[in-house]
Amino acid sequence: MPNVFSVKTLLELRAAFKSGLDFGAETEAHLGGALRQALDQPGNLVRGWLAYEVACAYGLSVARAKHMAVAIEYFHTASLIFDDLPFMDDATERRGGRCVHQTYGEAAAVLAGLGLVNRAYSLLWRGFAEASGDRRALAGDYVEGCLGVGGLLNGQSEDLHYGSLPQPRQSPERVATGKTVSLIRLSLVLPALLGGASSGEVRALERLATFWGLSYQILDDLKDVFSEPEQTGKTAGRDRSLNRPNLTLEIGPSRALRRLERLIDLGDRVLARLAAQAPALTFLEALSRRLRDELTGINVAILSTALSCSSN
Amino acid sequence: MPNVFSVKTLLELRAAFKSGLDFGAETEAHLGGALRQALDQPGNLVRGWLAYEVACAYGLSVARAKHMAVAIEYFHTASLIFDDLPFMDDATERRGGRCVHQTYGEAAAVLAGLGLVNRAYSLLWRGFAEASGDRRALAGDYVEGCLGVGGLLNGQSEDLHYGSLPQPRQSPERVATGKTVSLIRLSLVLPALLGGASSGEVRALERLATFWGLSYQILDDLKDVFSEPEQTGKTAGRDRSLNRPNLTLEIGPSRALRRLERLIDLGDRVLARLAAQAPALTFLEALSRRLRDELTGINVAILSTALSCSSN
Repeated sequence: MPNVFSVKTLLELRAAFKSGLDFGAETEAHLGGALRQALDQPGNLVRGWLAYEVACAYGLSVARAKHMAVAIEYFHTASLIFDDLPFMDDATERRGGRCVHQTYGEAAAVLAGLGLVNRAYSLLWRGFAEASGDRRALAGDYVEGCLGVGGLLNGQSEDLHYGSLPQPRQSPERVATGKTVSLIRLSLVLPALLGGASSGEVRALERLATFWGLSYQILDDLKDVFSEPEQTGKTAGRDRSLNRPNLTLEIGPSRALRRLERLIDLGDRVLARLAAQAPALTFLEALSRRLRDELTGINVAILSTALSCSSN
Repeated sequence: MPNVFSVKTLLELRAAFKSGLDFGAETEAHLGGALRQALDQPGNLVRGWLAYEVACAYGLSVARAKHMAVAIEYFHTASLIFDDLPFMDDATERRGGRCVHQTYGEAAAVLAGLGLVNRAYSLLWRGFAEASGDRRALAGDYVEGCLGVGGLLNGQSEDLHYGSLPQPRQSPERVATGKTVSLIRLSLVLPALLGGASSGEVRALERLATFWGLSYQILDDLKDVFSEPEQTGKTAGRDRSLNRPNLTLEIGPSRALRRLERLIDLGDRVLARLAAQAPALTFLEALSRRLRDELTGINVAILSTALSCSSN
């Protein structure tokens, strides 16, 4: 990551993530342990970094930008804690360690996830504080659209019940639009909305979020098939065994790779036009470069898998 | 209830509860079913009614009062859905029907609970809309204090792990202060804060919430021991089997009843002083009358249990 993100910003966001939910020593031991574990594993913070940089680009104060960044990362972390539960993806590893429910039990994992969600809303409120009433109302509706029943939650439910979806809705891209694009949209669009972005800029950021969110999902699907847990830090090979949507399994790795490349190209085109209108957003090119790096990395992983298969 | 609450208000709140989370026909079937079931069982709406009437007493518009009332009831309903899960209280009945997870599975129950929470925050934002920046900040912090790790969530965690709490914290009242008082506090204090209540009025409403919240918990504990599921609409006799805090089991029914009566008396004293300062809050006497009615009802239940034991 140091090649694309500012190390200083990343370290600051990591510190803000770790210290952003201060719970007392009297917190019940299972709940306190689950929260500590979640806060000690911030993940790659890419969503928070995006939100932070977009907020700064639109002139929000550093303090407000940080509140929004940490809030979005808490929503994301909570969604992973919930996704990993035995009655969801039944995972054992996450962010290179044990899943929270494996250490402290399912009840503590659910309560810690809810604690992160409540704290995230409290931080968002602070991020909204100085915006006009109209912008706050728009932003509030936008949050629910991304995180609520019309967004992330429906995506997660479609992911879980993929096999029983009616045929036109059995599409990995459709499921990923709810499950993965929603939080990238929130990261890119929410700070822009609060910072007074024009409707054209908001539309461009939404398209960018779609291309990048789908790119991330394709990468995730490829890694689920081709990577080892020690590379991804999470349980692998789950999609086939759980009958989850996975583009690589549906159309094969070469077509999935081509689609990924096409999505990154489409993102670059949107970004070029957007950066011409709003030069402060040029920094977003870093994420496109990062996606291309990941594309190279997964190509290497596929190649080595193919070589080891042919030599066996 | 018609003897204490306005039937018109109650019907309006029930309609607002049922229609307040509008999800599309394309919502995944398990998630949509779980939400529909939760929205079709509004419960007694006592918390929402309190929030609505306090909001109106402090001059908030009917629309804002209704947003806050429904938000608080969605938080409450979500907390019940989570509490009933197999790894929490493992209940089968709630509000006179099956628990949501019994009908649609644990994953759908968790996602529906999160959908209610997200919607509740969106409604709260609308309830906050016209307040000053200072009042909004106070109110935002208050929400997290009640619902977050320092409030409801810690209470629920202490309830679950009651047997392993360090000795001075093994007290049913302490656990109830987190688990039960938190939402009553939110219902009474949040609309008052937004409506510009004085700090003396806020303190009085907080004391009232403590007395009434603890009263409700003692009633709940008594019902868990003495009532049949068809009277309470939920699984009974859980506290002993799950080693949960229960004042009746700890100090016996007669002492629990005396403590309940004392708490209602203390509430009446606070209320008398408060109503002298803020006459618009006199309507709160209805809740005190309702608690006394419940006290009479549970006395009858205990008496009939004693009679049936002595005749056996």
